[in-house]
Amino acid sequence: MAHLLHIDSSPRGDRSHSRRITREFVEAWQQAHPADTVTYRDVGRQPVPHVDEPWIVAAYTPPEQRSPELWEAIRESDRLIDELIAAEILVVGVPMYNFSVPSTFKAYIDQIVRVGRTFAIDHEDAEDPYKPLLKGKKMFVITARGASGFGPGERYGHMNHQDPYLRVAFGFIGITDITFVHVQNDEHSSESLAASIAAAQAQVAQLVAA
Amino acid sequence: MAHLLHIDSSPRGDRSHSRRITREFVEAWQQAHPADTVTYRDVGRQPVPHVDEPWIVAAYTPPEQRSPELWEAIRESDRLIDELIAAEILVVGVPMYNFSVPSTFKAYIDQIVRVGRTFAIDHEDAEDPYKPLLKGKKMFVITARGASGFGPGERYGHMNHQDPYLRVAFGFIGITDITFVHVQNDEHSSESLAASIAAAQAQVAQLVAA
Repeated sequence: MAHLLHIDSSPRGDRSHSRRITREFVEAWQQAHPADTVTYRDVGRQPVPHVDEPWIVAAYTPPEQRSPELWEAIRESDRLIDELIAAEILVVGVPMYNFSVPSTFKAYIDQIVRVGRTFAIDHEDAEDPYKPLLKGKKMFVITARGASGFGPGERYGHMNHQDPYLRVAFGFIGITDITFVHVQNDEHSSESLAASIAAAQAQVAQLVAA
Repeated sequence: MAHLLHIDSSPRGDRSHSRRITREFVEAWQQAHPADTVTYRDVGRQPVPHVDEPWIVAAYTPPEQRSPELWEAIRESDRLIDELIAAEILVVGVPMYNFSVPSTFKAYIDQIVRVGRTFAIDHEDAEDPYKPLLKGKKMFVITARGASGFGPGERYGHMNHQDPYLRVAFGFIGITDITFVHVQNDEHSSESLAASIAAAQAQVAQLVAA
């Protein structure tokens, strides 16, 4: 029995392709694993706050020295991190916005990457001071993109700061087992979009069965 | 005579290194070019909105077909783009957050990269459908980073989605003349931070004099 965290970050509702495929993924997962439990988090339509100065002060103040105001400044961050730690499986929908993640999802990343909770700094280890604190999680990311050709060596590969960036940000806190499913060509012909959605659905079916 | 747009995106106030150096840059610039004018925009302490679904609908609706509600959905985007277009020189402070830009600055990018205003899509040109619409601008970006070693081939070079990403996002809309000044080691020894600030100040003096 596992716990699954389902996150959407598209600002779109019914028109979102990433939302549609994460929903289908989680439904198929629940059919295949009826004992598993699911938490849902929508950072696209209910954005989490940007990191602000009190957040930074609080994060870099040792817990035993934090005032009530400092605890309040990271309360939402603590809630999001607790939710992330509680899950073994992550299913995350992330559209590509301007060759990277949307600002809503970057706000989520900035909340969950936190010293002392998801990574540590060891100043004694000058060679490698940053230590990830999470482990054993499996992450599935459904992306949606207006075009195609974002793979290494492809037309827009050198401009792609979406999935390579997600590997860096989540790898930094110890989430390294990441599988991507890409829905592409939303800005182009409806045939190429439909073909991409069908391919994503087939990939999701394989991933859930595996 | 030129118009300069000065943007800060750090959530920090007085403790922000990027803010300090952009301020010193603009002050030195005004001394060297007393006839130039300056607009200031603080997206770090007064964040711009995330892109939402009405924004997307409005951006992809031809102007002559937009309802008053759709115009309202992109009013802030229009204001930010007008402000950007009016400037020949951009001086921008961008701290590194989790190997990329802070969510506040990503929200700014998502507002100003807009079809029909800062880039165009030409579906007839299948080889190269995206066309930048801005030109002739010179951009200076002051970054601030907790560590160092983010250059190509350096220790964290493969994890760096900050300045390489900024080149992609701003290059996409036609801003390709970008110079970076990096303040580094904020999370490490005060000596190495102080040395980095001094080097940044010397580089700023050279850039303004050039």
